[in-house]
Amino acid sequence: MKIALAQLNYHIGNFSSNVEKIKSNILRAKMEGADLVMFGELSVCGYPPRDFLEFPDFILRCEEAVKEIASVCFGISAIVGAPVKNPNVEGKDLFNAAFVLVDGKIKSVHHKGLLPNYDVFDEYRYFEPAKAFHIAEICGKKIALTICEDLWDVEENLMYTQWPMEELIKQQPELMLNIAASPFSTEHVEMRRVVMKRNVEKYKMPLFYVQHVGAQTEIIFDGGSMVLNEKGDVVCEMKYFEEDFQIIDTEGISNIEYRTPNIEVNKSEILMIHDALVLGIKDYFSKMGFTKAILGLSGGIDSALVLVLAIRALGKENVLSVLMPSEFSSQHSIDDSIALCKNLECGYEIVPINDAYEEMLDTLSPVFKSAPFNVAEENIQARLRAVILMGIANKFGYVLLNTSNKSEAAVGYGTLYGDMCGGISVIGDVYKTKVFELCRFINSEKEIIPNNIISKAPSAELRPNQKDSDSLPEYEILDKVLFEYIEKRQGPKELIEMGFEKTLIDRILKMVNSNEWKRAQMAPVLRVSQKAFGSGRRMPIVGKYLG
Amino acid sequence: MKIALAQLNYHIGNFSSNVEKIKSNILRAKMEGADLVMFGELSVCGYPPRDFLEFPDFILRCEEAVKEIASVCFGISAIVGAPVKNPNVEGKDLFNAAFVLVDGKIKSVHHKGLLPNYDVFDEYRYFEPAKAFHIAEICGKKIALTICEDLWDVEENLMYTQWPMEELIKQQPELMLNIAASPFSTEHVEMRRVVMKRNVEKYKMPLFYVQHVGAQTEIIFDGGSMVLNEKGDVVCEMKYFEEDFQIIDTEGISNIEYRTPNIEVNKSEILMIHDALVLGIKDYFSKMGFTKAILGLSGGIDSALVLVLAIRALGKENVLSVLMPSEFSSQHSIDDSIALCKNLECGYEIVPINDAYEEMLDTLSPVFKSAPFNVAEENIQARLRAVILMGIANKFGYVLLNTSNKSEAAVGYGTLYGDMCGGISVIGDVYKTKVFELCRFINSEKEIIPNNIISKAPSAELRPNQKDSDSLPEYEILDKVLFEYIEKRQGPKELIEMGFEKTLIDRILKMVNSNEWKRAQMAPVLRVSQKAFGSGRRMPIVGKYLG
Repeated sequence: MKIALAQLNYHIGNFSSNVEKIKSNILRAKMEGADLVMFGELSVCGYPPRDFLEFPDFILRCEEAVKEIASVCFGISAIVGAPVKNPNVEGKDLFNAAFVLVDGKIKSVHHKGLLPNYDVFDEYRYFEPAKAFHIAEICGKKIALTICEDLWDVEENLMYTQWPMEELIKQQPELMLNIAASPFSTEHVEMRRVVMKRNVEKYKMPLFYVQHVGAQTEIIFDGGSMVLNEKGDVVCEMKYFEEDFQIIDTEGISNIEYRTPNIEVNKSEILMIHDALVLGIKDYFSKMGFTKAILGLSGGIDSALVLVLAIRALGKENVLSVLMPSEFSSQHSIDDSIALCKNLECGYEIVPINDAYEEMLDTLSPVFKSAPFNVAEENIQARLRAVILMGIANKFGYVLLNTSNKSEAAVGYGTLYGDMCGGISVIGDVYKTKVFELCRFINSEKEIIPNNIISKAPSAELRPNQKDSDSLPEYEILDKVLFEYIEKRQGPKELIEMGFEKTLIDRILKMVNSNEWKRAQMAPVLRVSQKAFGSGRRMPIVGKYLG
Repeated sequence: MKIALAQLNYHIGNFSSNVEKIKSNILRAKMEGADLVMFGELSVCGYPPRDFLEFPDFILRCEEAVKEIASVCFGISAIVGAPVKNPNVEGKDLFNAAFVLVDGKIKSVHHKGLLPNYDVFDEYRYFEPAKAFHIAEICGKKIALTICEDLWDVEENLMYTQWPMEELIKQQPELMLNIAASPFSTEHVEMRRVVMKRNVEKYKMPLFYVQHVGAQTEIIFDGGSMVLNEKGDVVCEMKYFEEDFQIIDTEGISNIEYRTPNIEVNKSEILMIHDALVLGIKDYFSKMGFTKAILGLSGGIDSALVLVLAIRALGKENVLSVLMPSEFSSQHSIDDSIALCKNLECGYEIVPINDAYEEMLDTLSPVFKSAPFNVAEENIQARLRAVILMGIANKFGYVLLNTSNKSEAAVGYGTLYGDMCGGISVIGDVYKTKVFELCRFINSEKEIIPNNIISKAPSAELRPNQKDSDSLPEYEILDKVLFEYIEKRQGPKELIEMGFEKTLIDRILKMVNSNEWKRAQMAPVLRVSQKAFGSGRRMPIVGKYLG
C-alpha cells in the first residue's frame, strides 16, 4: 500500500484555498500511484479555528468542504481532518474528527479522544472527547487512525485517563496513521520524534504521521511529518518550515535502512528559531493580505534583528526602516543603522523627532508646569515615534513590526503605545541573550549586522547616557531567572535554592507579575518556546501573587 | 442548623487579604450563633486564578491558607474553596475543591465534577473533573455539597455527560449547599435563579447558594447569593454588587413566606449594567493599587458616560478630564464638555492639539510629500491625544480609561494606539444604543449629561463635518446585527432570513472579522453581556472566514 503524506500550509477559515490545495494534492497522489493520501488535523478549516467553531454556519461550511473533497476521491482514498457534529444528546456539540474518503463518499469518521487544553490549546472548549475507538479499513488493511494528541499520552505524561491506542490495539490493526497539528517550539521537535518512536516500540507496527506547516498568527507549525517502520527507524522525515509531499510504500519499509534525519533536523536551535520567525512573518503578511512592513530602527540589536528577519520573509523591496533620532540618540546609533540598511540594500527614511518632541512638551507645559524630567518624557519620545511609524504605515499601507524582545516584555521595560506597538511581535518570545545569538548566527558568514550594534551596551536612549543595566539586572542573569519562572514555573523558593539571591528574585518576579496589564495589550507574539506570552500564558491582571 | 452565607469580594492571589476576610467572617458567624459559614468557590485564592494554578508555589500557598483558616474553626464549621492536588497518577494535577473545616482541621474535601470551559472559563485547563461524589456530614446533617457548575447541567443544557447531584441524591442528603463564582451578565441574573429553583424542584430539599461579589479585571461578580426552601421559594436573596452576610436557620425555612426578591433584583437591565460598570472600575483601581483616573473628553456621548461612571466609582476628586480640541472640533463639543464637568464638579484641563498636530505633519512632510489628507491624518490626531493623555497619566500617576463602545470596537471604528488606548475598557461591552440608554437613565432625575451631548449626531471630529453615519450603518440597525452575530453566533444565512439585506450583512460581518487584530491589542473590557470582547471570545486573527 502506497501512502502519500501531504504536509501543507492551510489558512484558517479560508475554505476555498484549503479545499483547492487538498484536492490538487489528491490528484497528484493519484497520478503518482498512491493508494491513500493523508492531510493534517482539521485540515479542511485550518488549525486552530477557535471560536469560529461556535458558528453553525462555519460547521456547515466544513461539512460542505468535506463533501467537495470526497467528490474527487475516485481511485484513491484520502484522510482529511474536520469538525463533525456530536449526534448524542449529552456532551459538547462537536468532535474533532478524521474522515476517510473513498469512492466519492465519506467511508468512516474517527473522533479524537485526547483533547489538549493547555498552553495555546483550547480543544475541550469545543469538542467532546471520544470514548469509543474503531479501526479504519482502507484498501483492505486494518488501520489504527488517530488524531495528534491521541498518541501523546505515554508514560511520563499522564494528563488523561483513557488511552485510544490501548482500545485500538485490541482490534488488531496492522498500521498506525496519525493526522496532527503540532506547533513548533525548540524543545518540541525532538520530543515529537521520541513520542512517535515510543508508540512504534510499544505497538510494534509502522506509523505514518502527517502534520501542518505554516504560521497561523502566533502559532507556527514546523512540518517534519514522518514515517517510522515497525523497528522504530525513521524511514522518512519531511521538510521543516516548508510544504512537502512524499509517497512511502508500506511493503518495503521494514527493509529501508535507517536514514539519518534530514539535514534540516540537525539544525541548531538558533537556526530553527531563525527559520520559524521568518515563516511567522511571511505567513502573517500573506494570510492577512499584507505585503509591506515598516519598523523603527533604533541602532540597537533588537530592531536590527527584526529588520534582517523581515527582509528574509518579505524581500528587501517590501521593508521600510525608519530612523527617528532625538537629542538623546548617539551618532553611532544613526551611523550603525544606516550601515545596516546599506548592507541589506533596503530603503530607509530619517525622521528626527526633536521638533515634534519639543512641541509636545510645549503643548503639555500648562499641565506639566515645572515638574522635573522623568519617565513621562521618556515615554513621550517612544510614543511620538509610534505616531510617526503608524502615520507612514497608514499613509502608504505598511504594517508595523514590533521589535520588543522577551526579556523586556517580561519585565515591562518598554513603552506601551510606544515601542510596544506593532501588528505582530517578531521576537517577543526570544530572550535578549538569544537575540545576541541570532545576530551572531546571521553574521556567521559575513558581517550583515554591523558588529558595533552587537557589541555596544544595550540602551533605550531616552535620556542622557541611559543604559538598560541602569534599570535591569544583567541579561545573562535576568534571562536565566525569567526562563525558570516563565517556562519552568519555578517559584521564589525553588529559585533561591538554585542559588539566585532573594532580593533579585523578588524584584524580577514582581516586575513580571505587575506588568501583565502591559502585555495584555501587546501584539500577538510569534511562539518559538514552550511558553510564550500571549494565548498560551493566561495570567490574571489584577492578581496580587508575587506582584 | 444556622448557616451563614458570606458573600465577599476576594482578590486573586492576595492570600493575606482573602484569608483575613474569611477568618473575620468565621468569627462573626460564630459570634452571631451560626453553626456553619459558607464562602465562595476558590475563595482562598480568588477566581479565576488562571495560570497561577500552574505554579507549585501557588498551590502550596493555597494549602497553607486553608490550614490557617481551619485553625480558627472551633465551635463552628466552615466551607471554603481552594484547589487541591489530584492524588491519582492519571488525570490533571488538580481538583477544584470545597473544604469542610471543623475542630481546627480539614474534615472532608469535595471535588467539582462539571468544569466550565466556555466563554471566559478555562477550568479544564487546570482541573480534573471529579467522577465520584460523596456526601458531607456537618453538624450531624447529611449534605450534598457541590461547586457552582455542578448544579447547572439541567435539562436544556446537556454540555456534560455526568450529573453530580444524581450521584449525591442516592446517598440521601437532607440539604444542598453550593459554593459558586458566577460572573455577571444581564441575562445571567435571572438564569441563575431559574437554575437554582429547578434543582430544588427536582431534588426536593432546601438549597444554600453563596457566590462572589466584585470584579477581577474584566470579570464582574454580582453577588445575589440566595437560599431557597424545599418548596422553591427564595427565602433569602443577598445584595447585588456589594458584600453581604446573612444567617439563615434551616429549621424554619419551609415556613418562611415567599419574599419578593430584593428591590435590587427588580432592577432594570440598564441599572444593573450601570452598577456593574461602576463596580468594575472601582475594583480594577483598588486591586491594581491605583486611585486616580484620566480620560479624554471629546464632547461625545461615550466619554461623557465613562466620566460619570468613573466619578461614581472613584470620586470626583480622583478623576481628571482632558479636552483636546483640534481645528476639526466644533465649539459645541468644547462647551458641552465643560458643561458636563461643571455639572459633575470635576477637574478638567484643556490641551489643544493644533500645534502638535501641525508640527507632526511638518515632521512627516518629507515622507508624506504631497499625499492627500486621508485616514493617516485622522489617526495622527487620535494618537497625539493618546500621547497627551498618557503623558499626563505617567507624570502624575493617573490611569487612562478607555472610552470605546462595543459597536465601534466590533467594526474597528477607532484608532489603535489612539482612542483605543486605556488600562481598562469601561463600555467596550456596551453597544452604542445601550450607551444612549445609560445616559438617559443617568439623566432620569436631573440633567447631569448635557442633553446636547445625547441628542447630537455622533462624530469622531477628525475631518470637517465628519459623522459616524458616513462610515457606518445607523446604530439602530448595526447594533441589532452585531448582537445576533456576536452574542447569538448567527451566520449570514440566518441574518438574511431575519430580514437584513445581504450587502449590509456582508459588509458588517467582514468589518467585525477583519478587525480582530485591532481588538487583540485592546484593553480588557468590563464584561456585562453573555459575549464580550476579550478572554471570552477567542477568534483567529489571520482567519479568512467572512473576512
